[in-house]
Amino acid sequence: MSAGESDVPRPLRPLGPQRGIEIIDQRLLPHRLAWVPLQDAEAVATAIRDMWLRGAPLIGAAAAYGLALALARARAADDATLAAAAARLAATRPTAVNLAWALERVRSRVLPLPPGERAAAAWAEAEAIAEEDVAVNAAIGRHGLELLRAAAARRAAPPSRDRPLRVLTHCNAGWLATVGWGTATAPIYQAHAAGLPLEVWVDETRPRNQGASLTAWELGQAQVPHRVVADNAGGHLMQRGEVDLVIVGCDRVAANGDVCNKIGTYLKALAAHDNGVPFYVAMPMSTFDAALRDGDAIPIEERDTRELTHIAGRTADGEVVEVRLVPEGARAANPAFDVTPARLVTGLVTEHGVVDADAAALRALVRRVAPHAGGQGGQGGPAAVPGPGSAA
Amino acid sequence: MSAGESDVPRPLRPLGPQRGIEIIDQRLLPHRLAWVPLQDAEAVATAIRDMWLRGAPLIGAAAAYGLALALARARAADDATLAAAAARLAATRPTAVNLAWALERVRSRVLPLPPGERAAAAWAEAEAIAEEDVAVNAAIGRHGLELLRAAAARRAAPPSRDRPLRVLTHCNAGWLATVGWGTATAPIYQAHAAGLPLEVWVDETRPRNQGASLTAWELGQAQVPHRVVADNAGGHLMQRGEVDLVIVGCDRVAANGDVCNKIGTYLKALAAHDNGVPFYVAMPMSTFDAALRDGDAIPIEERDTRELTHIAGRTADGEVVEVRLVPEGARAANPAFDVTPARLVTGLVTEHGVVDADAAALRALVRRVAPHAGGQGGQGGPAAVPGPGSAA
Repeated sequence: MSAGESDVPRPLRPLGPQRGIEIIDQRLLPHRLAWVPLQDAEAVATAIRDMWLRGAPLIGAAAAYGLALALARARAADDATLAAAAARLAATRPTAVNLAWALERVRSRVLPLPPGERAAAAWAEAEAIAEEDVAVNAAIGRHGLELLRAAAARRAAPPSRDRPLRVLTHCNAGWLATVGWGTATAPIYQAHAAGLPLEVWVDETRPRNQGASLTAWELGQAQVPHRVVADNAGGHLMQRGEVDLVIVGCDRVAANGDVCNKIGTYLKALAAHDNGVPFYVAMPMSTFDAALRDGDAIPIEERDTRELTHIAGRTADGEVVEVRLVPEGARAANPAFDVTPARLVTGLVTEHGVVDADAAALRALVRRVAPHAGGQGGQGGPAAVPGPGSAA
Repeated sequence: MSAGESDVPRPLRPLGPQRGIEIIDQRLLPHRLAWVPLQDAEAVATAIRDMWLRGAPLIGAAAAYGLALALARARAADDATLAAAAARLAATRPTAVNLAWALERVRSRVLPLPPGERAAAAWAEAEAIAEEDVAVNAAIGRHGLELLRAAAARRAAPPSRDRPLRVLTHCNAGWLATVGWGTATAPIYQAHAAGLPLEVWVDETRPRNQGASLTAWELGQAQVPHRVVADNAGGHLMQRGEVDLVIVGCDRVAANGDVCNKIGTYLKALAAHDNGVPFYVAMPMSTFDAALRDGDAIPIEERDTRELTHIAGRTADGEVVEVRLVPEGARAANPAFDVTPARLVTGLVTEHGVVDADAAALRALVRRVAPHAGGQGGQGGPAAVPGPGSAA
């Protein structure tokens, strides 16, 4: 871990196996910043299910703490208790593969131990998952920063030379979606800290508005210049030369480099390709799924249409209310993710460096960083357990 | 005009030169259907400026009635009164070229007349503009219906063969945006009336939600099956074979076939092209601008960012309130239109038939339908006056 990582903003605070964790209730952002305690596994399960917190790495870490709490609270931390708690937590968001991955990591760590040692070991494993996430994202930030510097240097001619570097991002792959730094935002925060003038186009990201609600809030807190735009606007901005680089997070990357991410990502990748704008994906190795040949097989979560037909906001009186946007009785559909074909991806920004989005390059990276592992990744790190996709 | 056109739903009712017009206040849809009287030119100007009504053809027709009302109300319908009223109405939405086109058409019609005859002639000209719009859209509907039938026939294999034809549209190019039928919706209404099973994917169309608020409402009223989706979803739906055809309206089409339409249209055209989905643009000849070589020169209206940062909806109590969606102080940008390059457009559906989106085909069409006109269009019809773009 590099200097300063312990004091980056985090959406989760561990208080200890007896007291539990505290999290930011992200449902209230950007209108109110509220920390809520989660004192047992049941509270963690509810918070994940009802999306008080979201984002692949964060869900994984929170679930790991939840499992540790279940063991700490149980009269006996026996195998049955372990299995039941893991199943309960895993069921909260069935499509969030990261959740299953983190739970399996904790479970396999403590299973060989006597019941009396399991709670403490589980808590320690959850802490390891959380700290690794922060370190991985910091590394993604360092590699991504070089891409941003290069993009800034490439702007040879005015007027783009004379304005800040303009980076577009979709959804929230920020620190609120992780344990710290974020994935797509890590390079942005590092560039801002390094004094590279930049401005971020923040896709609103309908229907849940993670861009307008969360990314804009994060960037505002950090005083990173940014403007919120409708998801519809990105193509036009690229046509007019107003976007120098796109960087997004991901929920799962297949062996061939196909990227599953928040719905709408594919449209931005098409526009970037059509306009010669570099399109990067920040990919912790934990979201690389070598077992998946390509993106076609990724199941796309179909979420409650109420996310689209209703929206919460703040009235002039300061009250946060939910309103309906569509005609009474109107039907809707709400696919939550899409798949961006590898051919549209300029590069994958991992904690080990930037890699081409193709099968050969990804195989070579895996061989380099984890020569003794199977197809999946490293040893001990997040990539050691197969199939850790996620959900935003 | 074909049978039944007089009883299609219309968003504007002429009451007569003494009483004015009535319009649907579209700001209240989909939550409330309210007709409001506009009794003089000033009321019409306010309604256009504040978007009680919107949509290219409708703005043009309303402004024409407004000019007629100004002449009917004036003590003397002299040249100065005519010029002042036209200028006042034209200034309400400076980028809405259709407005200027309709005003110019009325002005040039009445200018040679003695002042005492001008008010009645202006009213008659406004009625002609309105009725021509309905007839043009009905013709677009007939030509578009053939495209829908062909798309339905092409679906040779299950499962698509066994489900309704799925058509995606963006924004509202429906009857609310015109005097009747709509442009992109005219083929849909005709197909529905003809018993062709179809379902419409309605792009929400942020930031003003013309899809979720207006198109969904229109289709619901007509009992056309439809589902509202986030603007982000269309690419994914096309990837999964869930869209058979895209049809949208337009605000201005350049001589080379480049299409200016509501922001986000370009992204859907890219996705349609990438997935082999036909992408059609319903184009009344009045929105063809032969004087414009290509779309690059089209100025893109930058609208108030409050359209993006705030939204109105209906609470559970039935009250319609406006709420803020973004963090306090967040900046935003709100380009209202984009340009879809002609290479992405399968065809332009005009009142004279379907034409390729390229310069040669468009020149040939103009020669065919208006052999004696200049570069611009026909005689007497909407295309007789140059430069009639529009605004949604």
